[in-house]
Amino acid sequence: MGLRKWRILSSRMVVDNQWCKVRQDEIELPNGKIVDDYFINIRLDVALILPITCDREIVFVRQYRHGAGEILLELPAGTFDNQIEDPQVAALRELREETGYTAKTAIPLGILYDNPVKDSNKIHLFLATDVKKLGQQELDSTEEIEVVLVPVSKVLEKIASNEINVAGTVSAIFMGLNYLNNVQSSHQN
Amino acid sequence: MGLRKWRILSSRMVVDNQWCKVRQDEIELPNGKIVDDYFINIRLDVALILPITCDREIVFVRQYRHGAGEILLELPAGTFDNQIEDPQVAALRELREETGYTAKTAIPLGILYDNPVKDSNKIHLFLATDVKKLGQQELDSTEEIEVVLVPVSKVLEKIASNEINVAGTVSAIFMGLNYLNNVQSSHQN
Repeated sequence: MGLRKWRILSSRMVVDNQWCKVRQDEIELPNGKIVDDYFINIRLDVALILPITCDREIVFVRQYRHGAGEILLELPAGTFDNQIEDPQVAALRELREETGYTAKTAIPLGILYDNPVKDSNKIHLFLATDVKKLGQQELDSTEEIEVVLVPVSKVLEKIASNEINVAGTVSAIFMGLNYLNNVQSSHQN
Repeated sequence: MGLRKWRILSSRMVVDNQWCKVRQDEIELPNGKIVDDYFINIRLDVALILPITCDREIVFVRQYRHGAGEILLELPAGTFDNQIEDPQVAALRELREETGYTAKTAIPLGILYDNPVKDSNKIHLFLATDVKKLGQQELDSTEEIEVVLVPVSKVLEKIASNEINVAGTVSAIFMGLNYLNNVQSSHQN
């Protein structure tokens, strides 16, 4: 493998706000070329969960997303500080707060990058089965979230029709259903 | 549905560089609350393609990604200006330039958001079958890209093992294989 990482010659923060951190790097490419304006968004990791009830319904959240400027249907998710909170704990907390549904444990499905070209953060994907509504939503004053149940049997149609259209959510649905299919077929063998 | 969009009261660009555009919005939430520091990254859309050869191999690219700080295995993709280029044309161009493989047409699989909370851009996903290597890579001086063929039969394992770990790529693989399965089963009926 001839591929090499880039070398950072210098870095400075051009935006350093609580909600937005942009770093400008001067980097040296493997071919010796120097680029002095490579911008990276430093972002918190995200914990995202595919929650499935015992009636084989998936618990979604619908909310306005200002980057897109649209109201979107997504899986429960939220940012967390990887240095102080466990991703599984964060995923179960987001599920509880955003939907009122709870699960005792969550199965890790994988860790993905959203945009590895421009952003530092990862999304930690989890699956929880037999989730139950045992409480109420606990939203903060800037959140307005609708809980939407979608039968597992209808979810692939909603992806194909682009009603479900966020990459992390789409990935988690397919990875989770694939995981459950593999578990099921290994039990049948 | 009680959900409403947020109202933008004012906007200003805090970074306005060719490679990085960050907008700070003052917004009014539906509950009347005002937030004066909501940051959005204004980004170009991405065209991404799942290219499959007649030998049922998927054409991947491996390259260093500076946001992640890692060398990653992804589908061919690139940014394009939605105002002046058609997404399908952009997807076929990226395939040709990054890999030397070509396809006559591409089937649209859907349009996803990467991060609808913080970024404005979408990823336009395409599938191309019977792609052929008819040329050489055409890389610019900052690009170093390895072409990697992965059999369709091995690709889900590489997602499950986290060797393929970028959300747009994972989504396109599952959506494309799902599309091909549906085409196949409708032909069998």
